[in-house]
Amino acid sequence: MATTYGQNLKITIYGGSHDAEIGVIAEGLPVGFEINLPELETFMQRRAPGKNAYSTTRREADAPVFLSGVTDGSLDGSTLRAVIYNTNQRSSDYSNLAFIPRPSHADFAARMKYGEEVDLRGGGHFSGRLTAPMCIVGGICLQYLASRGIYVGAHLYCIENVYDTPFDMVSLDKNTLLAPKSSEFPVLNEEAGENMKKAIENARLDADSVGGIVECGVIGLPAGLGEHMFCGVENRISGIVFGIPAVKGIEFGNGFECAHIRGSQNNDPFRTDGKRIYTETNNAGGILGGMTSGMPLIFRAAMKPTPSIYKEQDSVDMVSMTNQRLLIKGRHDPCVAVRAVPVFEAAAAIAITDMLLAENK
Amino acid sequence: MATTYGQNLKITIYGGSHDAEIGVIAEGLPVGFEINLPELETFMQRRAPGKNAYSTTRREADAPVFLSGVTDGSLDGSTLRAVIYNTNQRSSDYSNLAFIPRPSHADFAARMKYGEEVDLRGGGHFSGRLTAPMCIVGGICLQYLASRGIYVGAHLYCIENVYDTPFDMVSLDKNTLLAPKSSEFPVLNEEAGENMKKAIENARLDADSVGGIVECGVIGLPAGLGEHMFCGVENRISGIVFGIPAVKGIEFGNGFECAHIRGSQNNDPFRTDGKRIYTETNNAGGILGGMTSGMPLIFRAAMKPTPSIYKEQDSVDMVSMTNQRLLIKGRHDPCVAVRAVPVFEAAAAIAITDMLLAENK
Amino acid sequence: MATTYGQNLKITIYGGSHDAEIGVIAEGLPVGFEINLPELETFMQRRAPGKNAYSTTRREADAPVFLSGVTDGSLDGSTLRAVIYNTNQRSSDYSNLAFIPRPSHADFAARMKYGEEVDLRGGGHFSGRLTAPMCIVGGICLQYLASRGIYVGAHLYCIENVYDTPFDMVSLDKNTLLAPKSSEFPVLNEEAGENMKKAIENARLDADSVGGIVECGVIGLPAGLGEHMFCGVENRISGIVFGIPAVKGIEFGNGFECAHIRGSQNNDPFRTDGKRIYTETNNAGGILGGMTSGMPLIFRAAMKPTPSIYKEQDSVDMVSMTNQRLLIKGRHDPCVAVRAVPVFEAAAAIAITDMLLAENK
Amino acid sequence: MATTYGQNLKITIYGGSHDAEIGVIAEGLPVGFEINLPELETFMQRRAPGKNAYSTTRREADAPVFLSGVTDGSLDGSTLRAVIYNTNQRSSDYSNLAFIPRPSHADFAARMKYGEEVDLRGGGHFSGRLTAPMCIVGGICLQYLASRGIYVGAHLYCIENVYDTPFDMVSLDKNTLLAPKSSEFPVLNEEAGENMKKAIENARLDADSVGGIVECGVIGLPAGLGEHMFCGVENRISGIVFGIPAVKGIEFGNGFECAHIRGSQNNDPFRTDGKRIYTETNNAGGILGGMTSGMPLIFRAAMKPTPSIYKEQDSVDMVSMTNQRLLIKGRHDPCVAVRAVPVFEAAAAIAITDMLLAENK
Repeated sequence: MATTYGQNLKITIYGGSHDAEIGVIAEGLPVGFEINLPELETFMQRRAPGKNAYSTTRREADAPVFLSGVTDGSLDGSTLRAVIYNTNQRSSDYSNLAFIPRPSHADFAARMKYGEEVDLRGGGHFSGRLTAPMCIVGGICLQYLASRGIYVGAHLYCIENVYDTPFDMVSLDKNTLLAPKSSEFPVLNEEAGENMKKAIENARLDADSVGGIVECGVIGLPAGLGEHMFCGVENRISGIVFGIPAVKGIEFGNGFECAHIRGSQNNDPFRTDGKRIYTETNNAGGILGGMTSGMPLIFRAAMKPTPSIYKEQDSVDMVSMTNQRLLIKGRHDPCVAVRAVPVFEAAAAIAITDMLLAENK
Repeated sequence: MATTYGQNLKITIYGGSHDAEIGVIAEGLPVGFEINLPELETFMQRRAPGKNAYSTTRREADAPVFLSGVTDGSLDGSTLRAVIYNTNQRSSDYSNLAFIPRPSHADFAARMKYGEEVDLRGGGHFSGRLTAPMCIVGGICLQYLASRGIYVGAHLYCIENVYDTPFDMVSLDKNTLLAPKSSEFPVLNEEAGENMKKAIENARLDADSVGGIVECGVIGLPAGLGEHMFCGVENRISGIVFGIPAVKGIEFGNGFECAHIRGSQNNDPFRTDGKRIYTETNNAGGILGGMTSGMPLIFRAAMKPTPSIYKEQDSVDMVSMTNQRLLIKGRHDPCVAVRAVPVFEAAAAIAITDMLLAENK
Repeated sequence: MATTYGQNLKITIYGGSHDAEIGVIAEGLPVGFEINLPELETFMQRRAPGKNAYSTTRREADAPVFLSGVTDGSLDGSTLRAVIYNTNQRSSDYSNLAFIPRPSHADFAARMKYGEEVDLRGGGHFSGRLTAPMCIVGGICLQYLASRGIYVGAHLYCIENVYDTPFDMVSLDKNTLLAPKSSEFPVLNEEAGENMKKAIENARLDADSVGGIVECGVIGLPAGLGEHMFCGVENRISGIVFGIPAVKGIEFGNGFECAHIRGSQNNDPFRTDGKRIYTETNNAGGILGGMTSGMPLIFRAAMKPTPSIYKEQDSVDMVSMTNQRLLIKGRHDPCVAVRAVPVFEAAAAIAITDMLLAENK
Repeated sequence: MATTYGQNLKITIYGGSHDAEIGVIAEGLPVGFEINLPELETFMQRRAPGKNAYSTTRREADAPVFLSGVTDGSLDGSTLRAVIYNTNQRSSDYSNLAFIPRPSHADFAARMKYGEEVDLRGGGHFSGRLTAPMCIVGGICLQYLASRGIYVGAHLYCIENVYDTPFDMVSLDKNTLLAPKSSEFPVLNEEAGENMKKAIENARLDADSVGGIVECGVIGLPAGLGEHMFCGVENRISGIVFGIPAVKGIEFGNGFECAHIRGSQNNDPFRTDGKRIYTETNNAGGILGGMTSGMPLIFRAAMKPTPSIYKEQDSVDMVSMTNQRLLIKGRHDPCVAVRAVPVFEAAAAIAITDMLLAENK
């Protein structure tokens, strides 16, 4: 099922951006775990639109409503279903899109796949809005992992040409990891954050958009999570991360940089203090042979600029088969990477919980 | 199953690098398709070790033997099983590895996962040697796709700091795409190839290794292959590509570059000549909303330098829990990316055949 | 996922019997197929409660509401979601069940699995009510199959000791197969139907319940659907049929009878009229080696008597660990098999559509 | 994959009856568990042909050879691969079958599915011989379960019209359960066994065959294994049991009998002695709502008579499309149910181990 992820913790996401509701169904969450609901809502708010100038002007509560699976605030063993009611759709904004596909959107490919019947209002089931239900389960997983001493955090690593301070892959600590979560703008370096905001604001004023890179880290992991070959940590994290719209690349540890250095520089020597074994460097990003090494797990994902920009663009009328100019309306983030930061935390938390549940650890 | 991939075309790879044989089991291949066996062997030879100074001195025939599934050279509908007999193992080379993990290898994580019983000779089921059975099925898929006008090719995009000419993402033609296949060294630009060889040879003389980036392209695809969310083209290709040992990153189209540019630069405008619809640029790498757009599909994967180098390295004796120096023996490629080029073709061909079979197209 | 079925047509069922809604999510349904909605509602009504004395006195509209996937009455390629709003719950009827498990219900096992948090109101996710969403997708599949000349029908084969006329496994025709659908009581033989009604009514007057056997037939199938070993027609049909609560056995063709006869009696000789190949008998029930033979597909499933009876029963208070007497309230069918007849049609239609989509036939 | 079963313990079976070898690949077996190899071979011998007059005269050692996954007799965490080398094939016996399908065999359906290329020698991948690799993993699971106090046993419940003493579903003890394993003929009642042998011998002398019913029991199970809806114990056991060729029906607990009695007779009252909770009867066969109840798990499966009999039969030449008489050669059991008894034990042990591994219990 295209909308289903996971082996032990299994989720199915449903709804289109302009349906009455969007939601998630989950099986396998740890029975009896007590959800901190205010903390979950705070987490959801980080993804929610309408918070500031860097995001779309749509205002949606994005408050999760649990319809089953939760009793008195605890996971009760039955299948969890949580929904977010859409209150603010404007389908008419999309009336001209049925025939003229938006550049770099799913419209064209969907119509080629499904034919004329395909429903494209608001991106249909291809919409970034569907990351909200992912955040409900991911938010619960973040709390569950924290209860076991495993912490997941992410920050804006790069916007256009502005870079934040990267996570220290060897000695990443809980305070640094979690700092961007409580920051008004999810970065480690405040100055970099200000410059990123300017880059986004400049794009917005130009009726344009910008892309970005999000970096995500996980600490406190036991060694030995994950499997070899097609069920490695990289396979499973990329399997959920490429489910986040606009992601065009992912790298683990030093990632693409490893192609430019030698083995003697890239290898992470093992050391021990007699009690635990660790590595002096962590170019592997905490993954060896598809399994966790116990060192911080680090990955970065590149997100393309929002394709919905307010400049007139070239496209094609698929009915008359003629070239056309297209002006997109609607409300769209000038940079989707900002609100995507908690989504990567959610995705990583789901993938790791899934692997953790397999290990009985 | 960690060693199983695919939904319609399903493969299971088995064996460890030092078992008597390694093999692949496949279901769902198109019944009646006639395999060009000499072409398949030529393809397998591109991955086989011992061909030149850039690869390990192990010499293995790597000739596939079909034990079922093929009758008179055609796919007969029964489950395909093909094996490669290992003839040249030297397990004694690995006798000291049981206790002292090789830096940046799977050894440590495997022992943490499975305990002392784990079998690490030659990398066990984590070995790059297991990409050979993937190439058997991948090689058949390449022929099948070609029979339908779909061509898959790859080349060494970068070694250390030497770059080959990249594939033209808009107008990639069959000749260019397939040229590296018949070249002695899999590049488009001969001079770049010579410089890459020097970089590898220098590393080898230094008892060291180098990483690299492989670029893979696919042309002739119909639009609309793949699905949304967790079954997108990116999810499925990365799901098999991260099954190739040493891969640390993957990107599609302009990939990480998209993070640094604006939407107006990144968007690919649609155009039509009245008959077909195409895009003027192809930063999307032929994928929109998880589905093929009909434009060339392009991805790049970064491979780390071979972790098995001949320099003495720091490691730990996991029994006595003391720091140790480790000198690795055995025969190892100074750059795994060279022989991995056809493996990426095989991986892409399997993923695309799997998606194609779902579409009835 | 425990609530997910299918490989090409994939469904996820959600909700508990006393949630505000129950629903189904489906992917892979044939895009563009036009649903006959009145026919679908008629089909749903056959399963709906409150129709007559043989079923529970709960009255539920059971009208499906399509929230996505259907545009202008046709399948539009996006994920289908259909719900039924529960309007008539009485959770208080279940207040004493949390501690005292109902004999032959899921209560005890669920509590042993999930602990005290488990939600048991109305059977939670174990309720027979969840067959309603299965009927929505199954009803669409029935229409789709009919459009391809494949017909699915079922009837009450046995209640207590009253037997209906069995389907003729060789020459089952469309009229006979579909007759029970339009009958007030789903049997072929009216007198048998009257006697079954009496048996049910007698049980009801005794505050008791009865079991039954449902027989299901499919005609018009091509030969060669299904696969060998674990993906045979029997595996896949039983995989969905045992998802219907209260089913305790299933048999195909002559089923358990085959154990008592010889090969020369059981074998179905092949014959041809020069155009098509058929068998003279059909003890195989239309399945050979896990694949359809093109003959009528026949299976029978046994359903236990409704465990919720109105007699006082022995049970245990799981908190005080003492023996107790239990009197069950609520509204329950005296014979679940009656309303289950269309559910078996739905289940068979889903399994067959799933296999048909795999074949490109 | 048609030949893959399991979620936590995953097996893939490969090979055809007349390939050089048949084998099994397994992932997820408990690392470090020490296999009792002589006990495993004794178990395999119960299924092996050529032991007595009641089975085929083919003589095959059926000794499993472990090619990976086992080190020093213990499961070592790597993927297990075990093979059985075929030494006694006679493909020429099958030379006329390519065109004239054997009644009640897979031949016809396979040819309709795959076309002329399909390989039918010895039943190809539809052969009962493929239950031997299932017994290798099943035999290991039986030992593993026994080490945890869970015992699985089966016996011939019925041949033609001769019935063995059934398992006592309430108080089935270890001695009774395991007695048929060490018996020369797998029954509880010696006289019934003698009569069954006569029935088989009579069929054999008539160039005919007989069917049978196998009953399988499991004791020592914790309550709460299995899941609801499509992942219930019944779904998962029938999912593997219908992978055994010739099975035409399965029932759990009192099975089809439940259709003929009332709820007050069928319900199993709960009782407690203050320490544990049990049921006074066990019509449920140890399964409530898809989950184990902790009572003995009981199921019965019907196997059709061997379709390969030595009487001339009616069939069709599929090339000339004319009616023909067919005389089958080769060596075939007059009653496959006898040797299938340990196969049901293996299938049940695999299904239960798979569910047990999911529970962390």
